[in-house]
Amino acid sequence: MATINDNYLKLKAGYLFPEIARRVKAFADANPDAKMIRLGIGDVTEPLPDACRAAMIKAVDEMGDRTTFKGYGPEQGYEWLRQAIATHDFQSRGCDISADEIFISDGSKCDCGNILDIFGNDNAIAVTDPVYPVYVDTNVMAGHTGDANDQGEYGGLVYLPITAENNFTAPLPTQKVDLIYLCFPNNPTGATASREHLQAWVDYARAHGSIIFFDAAYEAFITDPSIPHSIFEIEGARDCAIEFRSFSKNAGFTGTRCALTVVPKTLMGKASDGSNVELWKLWNRRQSTKFNGVSYIVQRGAEAVYSPEGQAQTRSLIDFYMENARIIREQLNAAGLQVYGGINAPYVWVKTPYGLSSWDFFDKLLHTCNVVGTPGSGFGAAGEGYFRISAFNSRANVEDAMTRITATFRV
Amino acid sequence: MATINDNYLKLKAGYLFPEIARRVKAFADANPDAKMIRLGIGDVTEPLPDACRAAMIKAVDEMGDRTTFKGYGPEQGYEWLRQAIATHDFQSRGCDISADEIFISDGSKCDCGNILDIFGNDNAIAVTDPVYPVYVDTNVMAGHTGDANDQGEYGGLVYLPITAENNFTAPLPTQKVDLIYLCFPNNPTGATASREHLQAWVDYARAHGSIIFFDAAYEAFITDPSIPHSIFEIEGARDCAIEFRSFSKNAGFTGTRCALTVVPKTLMGKASDGSNVELWKLWNRRQSTKFNGVSYIVQRGAEAVYSPEGQAQTRSLIDFYMENARIIREQLNAAGLQVYGGINAPYVWVKTPYGLSSWDFFDKLLHTCNVVGTPGSGFGAAGEGYFRISAFNSRANVEDAMTRITATFRV
Repeated sequence: MATINDNYLKLKAGYLFPEIARRVKAFADANPDAKMIRLGIGDVTEPLPDACRAAMIKAVDEMGDRTTFKGYGPEQGYEWLRQAIATHDFQSRGCDISADEIFISDGSKCDCGNILDIFGNDNAIAVTDPVYPVYVDTNVMAGHTGDANDQGEYGGLVYLPITAENNFTAPLPTQKVDLIYLCFPNNPTGATASREHLQAWVDYARAHGSIIFFDAAYEAFITDPSIPHSIFEIEGARDCAIEFRSFSKNAGFTGTRCALTVVPKTLMGKASDGSNVELWKLWNRRQSTKFNGVSYIVQRGAEAVYSPEGQAQTRSLIDFYMENARIIREQLNAAGLQVYGGINAPYVWVKTPYGLSSWDFFDKLLHTCNVVGTPGSGFGAAGEGYFRISAFNSRANVEDAMTRITATFRV
Repeated sequence: MATINDNYLKLKAGYLFPEIARRVKAFADANPDAKMIRLGIGDVTEPLPDACRAAMIKAVDEMGDRTTFKGYGPEQGYEWLRQAIATHDFQSRGCDISADEIFISDGSKCDCGNILDIFGNDNAIAVTDPVYPVYVDTNVMAGHTGDANDQGEYGGLVYLPITAENNFTAPLPTQKVDLIYLCFPNNPTGATASREHLQAWVDYARAHGSIIFFDAAYEAFITDPSIPHSIFEIEGARDCAIEFRSFSKNAGFTGTRCALTVVPKTLMGKASDGSNVELWKLWNRRQSTKFNGVSYIVQRGAEAVYSPEGQAQTRSLIDFYMENARIIREQLNAAGLQVYGGINAPYVWVKTPYGLSSWDFFDKLLHTCNVVGTPGSGFGAAGEGYFRISAFNSRANVEDAMTRITATFRV
């Protein structure tokens, strides 16, 4: 009989968000009149920028004429989109990244998982705690871990706690690790990494021949001009980093699907014969063989993000969500709750009051305020006692949710 | 230093189509006035159906209003699309397949490769020869093979030759295999599998606990009513088969990107403790964790394939390409070439004349007729001495190409 990948059986019962959905549905079924406000999953709520929609409609029209019809595109993405990204997102910030080092994809979640395809199974892997669950689960599925303990920590992974105690900076590991996942601005804590902190990471990685997987999905929300948007703003990062970016959060593409991964051509991994191999070539081969490129229509929509109109409209979307974040911070602060993040990121990270566990606070918020957030412990053991509130919602819903919470919790 | 996945180093230098592109570019650069006709890569050329475009424009408009805006959709695809597929493609043909056994994706190439994620590394794997290269290359990358020999055959794979000698039917293996790739109507030979032939495969798979990966990407091109469109038309297939389908070839979605994979809930694999595990659950977990669903806009376009207008427009696209296939068959036959396929598939499989090798015939056709095809040997050792000509082009180009070829080759 065909055998399965047994590593899947090590995965904890539910991916975080399905478990939230289950509890929310159970409550909603029992309380059909409750007006729920969802500040849980990090999903955008506001319309796509006009510039993106106009570009997509034009692209759909092109698909109706055989002279402008597009069949298979390059697996790596169209040159015009890769060039726009290289120019606007990287070269404009002094990053030495060229268009052919950028691979367009249909999502950062896919890329974060798929990137493991090109690496060996013997690498030591570090993640922060709390952490975006996909980093961990994809390593479990790939057989890079042992079983999970009661706190949900998998054997074989190196966990780097980021908590109030270390000011939410990811501490350098004390042992040698080969692959390191960093996400800044951070999901879920909303913390940022300073230039000096990232430089220390790059120096560590170069000293140890490690590769940093840098998830910059939330870079557009940075308001502090001293904070780097890309790992490639850091000296030496071309020799040790891969960066993931997405149009999901800056331009509202969570349902439209477009993202990108940057693999510098200077980046090397070691083959078992001791030789150095260009990771760019491996990723290019992986994508050519197992992927067929992003919809032409969607790529035209993403390109429009870089038009003057697209830039202005995207900016105003981000400003809108960041004003939500400000309201959440201020209101929760005023209610006496301890809050972090929300200044350079669309997430506010709240210390749960009264010593409640993350899931107890989740249930309390759901049942008493009909507000859905995300339990910090769902992101890792060190997230226990914290709670993530997302700024992705309408102004009215955010204000309503804060009124309900501050009326209930006075710490 | 971080290590790489050494299995990538076993891959032969180029995926077939990049090598074709390289030779075509070299010729075109040296002969800028040559009017090339491309009948090589299986890419469609005619516009998207109006019904699909209208649905996508409506979807783009919905994205502009927050009340109809769509963020993250279900990773498995929207219920309305899964239901339309279940009804029209499966239940209408008597297949017992429900909507929740259908997973929407951005491409069959992705799914064919990714499906290996959920299986063990100790399965014996069979492929036909010739074969769609993605089946083989993804197994090489996953470490399921040894090195390649001079004919490009990888150690550890079971190759099942499909040639004129066995009337292009895939012979049952003489040894036990666990995973079997079948593609009917076949790419590249254009051959079909009769109901009896597929029943023999299903019986083999059930007897041995094997899983059949059935690639039905070309089912819409079947003209013979006795030929099954789906493996699930065969008794017992729910216990032993996964089916891949795509909107690429029937509705011209190669640049728009939508496909689907059917995993019956009754399908089991064996865990290392000997227990049976539902493959549906593993694939659902894989897709939930490593994929974020297909663009809402594209899913609406795919749904429109099942509207009355979409069905008529898709039918007329297929008829158009199949008339091309008829012309190719007849003209090459008249020139004395031995041709196969092209009756229930958009590919004509030609025996190379004068005992030329596949690549020699490729070069000759390119240099003397400026026509691009695909060398049969690029699909496997048993494809040597054959050549694939695709029916995907305009009528004028197909007729022009046939005039050129028949003027050059008289066997």
